[in-house]
Amino acid sequence: MSSQIKQAIEAVDSIFNARSVAVIGASQDPGKMGYMTLNSIIQGGYEGDIYPINPKADHLLGLRAYPSISHVPGPIDLIVVVIPAPYVAAVLREAVEKGVSAAVIISGGFREAGRPDLEEELHSISKKSGLRICGPNVQGINYVPNKLCAMFWPLVTAPGPIAIIGQSGTVTASLAEWAEFEGLGISGAVNLGNQVDLCESDFLEFFAEDEKTRAIALYLEAPKDGKRFQQTLQRVARKKPVAILKSGRTAGGQKAAASHTGSLAGIDEVFSGACRQLGVFRADDLEHIFDSVKAIATMPEPQGNRLLVLTTSGGSAALGIDEAEKRGLSIPPLPAPLVEKLKKAQSIPAFASFSNPLDFAGVNIENFREALPILHQFGVADIYLLIFGDPVPGGAEAVEQLASEMSAPLVVSYLGGGALQRSDSVKMQAAGIPVFSTPDRAARGIAAAVWNACYRKGKGDISATVY
Amino acid sequence: MSSQIKQAIEAVDSIFNARSVAVIGASQDPGKMGYMTLNSIIQGGYEGDIYPINPKADHLLGLRAYPSISHVPGPIDLIVVVIPAPYVAAVLREAVEKGVSAAVIISGGFREAGRPDLEEELHSISKKSGLRICGPNVQGINYVPNKLCAMFWPLVTAPGPIAIIGQSGTVTASLAEWAEFEGLGISGAVNLGNQVDLCESDFLEFFAEDEKTRAIALYLEAPKDGKRFQQTLQRVARKKPVAILKSGRTAGGQKAAASHTGSLAGIDEVFSGACRQLGVFRADDLEHIFDSVKAIATMPEPQGNRLLVLTTSGGSAALGIDEAEKRGLSIPPLPAPLVEKLKKAQSIPAFASFSNPLDFAGVNIENFREALPILHQFGVADIYLLIFGDPVPGGAEAVEQLASEMSAPLVVSYLGGGALQRSDSVKMQAAGIPVFSTPDRAARGIAAAVWNACYRKGKGDISATVY
Repeated sequence: MSSQIKQAIEAVDSIFNARSVAVIGASQDPGKMGYMTLNSIIQGGYEGDIYPINPKADHLLGLRAYPSISHVPGPIDLIVVVIPAPYVAAVLREAVEKGVSAAVIISGGFREAGRPDLEEELHSISKKSGLRICGPNVQGINYVPNKLCAMFWPLVTAPGPIAIIGQSGTVTASLAEWAEFEGLGISGAVNLGNQVDLCESDFLEFFAEDEKTRAIALYLEAPKDGKRFQQTLQRVARKKPVAILKSGRTAGGQKAAASHTGSLAGIDEVFSGACRQLGVFRADDLEHIFDSVKAIATMPEPQGNRLLVLTTSGGSAALGIDEAEKRGLSIPPLPAPLVEKLKKAQSIPAFASFSNPLDFAGVNIENFREALPILHQFGVADIYLLIFGDPVPGGAEAVEQLASEMSAPLVVSYLGGGALQRSDSVKMQAAGIPVFSTPDRAARGIAAAVWNACYRKGKGDISATVY
Repeated sequence: MSSQIKQAIEAVDSIFNARSVAVIGASQDPGKMGYMTLNSIIQGGYEGDIYPINPKADHLLGLRAYPSISHVPGPIDLIVVVIPAPYVAAVLREAVEKGVSAAVIISGGFREAGRPDLEEELHSISKKSGLRICGPNVQGINYVPNKLCAMFWPLVTAPGPIAIIGQSGTVTASLAEWAEFEGLGISGAVNLGNQVDLCESDFLEFFAEDEKTRAIALYLEAPKDGKRFQQTLQRVARKKPVAILKSGRTAGGQKAAASHTGSLAGIDEVFSGACRQLGVFRADDLEHIFDSVKAIATMPEPQGNRLLVLTTSGGSAALGIDEAEKRGLSIPPLPAPLVEKLKKAQSIPAFASFSNPLDFAGVNIENFREALPILHQFGVADIYLLIFGDPVPGGAEAVEQLASEMSAPLVVSYLGGGALQRSDSVKMQAAGIPVFSTPDRAARGIAAAVWNACYRKGKGDISATVY
């Protein structure tokens, strides 16, 4: 491992795995970021020392507050800065004095606000002192294995297999919220801000080695350093699946991205081609990147692209298969001996449709229990999509058990099922089975996982047609 | 109006606006459809007479039960049938005796279960007697203006502007659930089942004339009678916007649809072309048809395709504009005098990005309050997309007020906003402002509304490029 990579990993580690944190500009006003950030750290369950810094308060949110960093008795690993831009540099210098390793600078008001001079000062302090900086102008960082949610918004605590890196606070927040809401959870989330020091490549290096992370979602407008980014991706994508959502697909989108982060988005097709070569999955939109990393991170790696659909709802299956075929998945027929065996299964009605999709034409979880082992035994497919239309009593339990007994990946699409759908979907997702709210989205997620598996196995010929 | 159209409307009306309903096979077992259906009718708030029919019960769910239709003292407009297939024909004959106008036959076990003979009997009774039938093999019907949810699942009561017709119970259920969950509501929902009598064309005719319905969502595998369907669509689409989701886009999807409803899906491209000519919006997937009818039914008709994006989040705006341009919307620049005026607005920070997207680079609802009237005054756009990233306090109130003051359509995309997002989104949607969970989905919905408006104005040249 090169020293640049080591340094990147150590830098991010010094933030994510900090054992003590000071919040500069902690506030008791619930509307302020200084309150929200401190609150996130406390509510997130952080187990290290927390030092609110505020010259006007003795205590904040039940913790002893200090007038400045130098007043803090113990060592400080990380400072999280939420004070106006003009005062940030002075605090960083104080932090360097104190021996602080890293800073997350939430404060805005730098380059993006017409003050590149203030930003240059931060850059220069970081360069000279070795203090590593995330930001400025970020919502913060969240590293769940260390229970450190140093992010003013949102507070996400559910541990899970995906890491989120976003060149937009809201996009990062949105993906993290979905992951928590659905029971998927995250390993970490970070948004990049003005990248005065640490950039997307540094976080990619960290998550590539992070054992809690199984897949990385990256929202990008333009890399800070294109050449380094390409080299990093090339290496990182070999170790760990990466999905990218990049704005600037159209002229207007490029202009919008440029005015947001001041960087040129580059020719879109070239970027797509580069992603394919590097083994990076390029997503079409916000739901697509979420569905893709969810599938990649939670499905056992599929051994091929043959999809078998088992369903309670014929219409939903038709929609799922449309999307699956469009994305290059194969829908194998059922061989006659298999159909014979299925027809003998006790619970499956005679009027079921014994093809692919295998349509049980009604809601009965026993149908799935009986059919799946038979299908698996015949080895006709690499992935099984279970479509639950309307409430399916006992669904989550059955699927969890089946998933534990089978080596092939099970994916669930659950729709039209009201309160039971919601609770059972979260249960299954938390148990590591990917659940999607529509069959189309399930098909897109599965296609991403197949694409990823093909890349990993060096099957370039298949990866060119599945996406 | 031809007599065929009149008959269709009267037939559906006799179901939807029934003044008395008997549930044949009503049950006290909460797991049974006979219970669920009766429960939906009662919980839905139906104000007509309800007669549970069950030879073994005196009372069901608090209502007096009767052993058979002929025992019911008053007249019965509609029967809802939830008994095994072999017994249905006899009940229909009894209903004809009693003077019943129509039947919703939820029971399955007919053609789809290898018993075309039983289905033929129903057909023949209907033909001879004039009894109109929805089904068999359906989840039921729901007509909110009459508070009649004769559907075993789901129970949806929120009144709203969209009608759902689905050749799949689950697809119908899913769209109806989303509409209720989001605060959009429905006028009616029906799923077609085996269409022994009434088919998609009949329901289209009804909703075309229904004053509570502003747009129709149709999920279709194949029309019952292609020629009539085409003629109906041609006429109906002129009166009221129709969006279609049709499975069978691929060979596998066609096969799946065929095995579900036994009908051939037809050549997909031909169908797409026909839709365009008829002015019917063809959606790509389940979320797309929902987003499309939502936008079409709730946006004031846009006067053109120029979209202006106002945002708290630069990244989200870039994603929205990408999708908007891809779909043929135009993203006009801001003229210099307008920018000058915006820069003088009190609340808008100097470091905002004064272009399209107009990026306020922070969360402050006052920015929207000040900017929108200025933008509208200059008339630079036909539609305004407001992107809320993270929680935006006061958002719903401000948007509702702005929408009431402006003639141009406002559309909201709200993401990453936690509990406030959820509650404010429902508020805005219930007030008639379309809200989307991602900027991509908002852009797709807007494009559908523009496509629809272009068709209505006869601007074929624009409708060819916006979709």
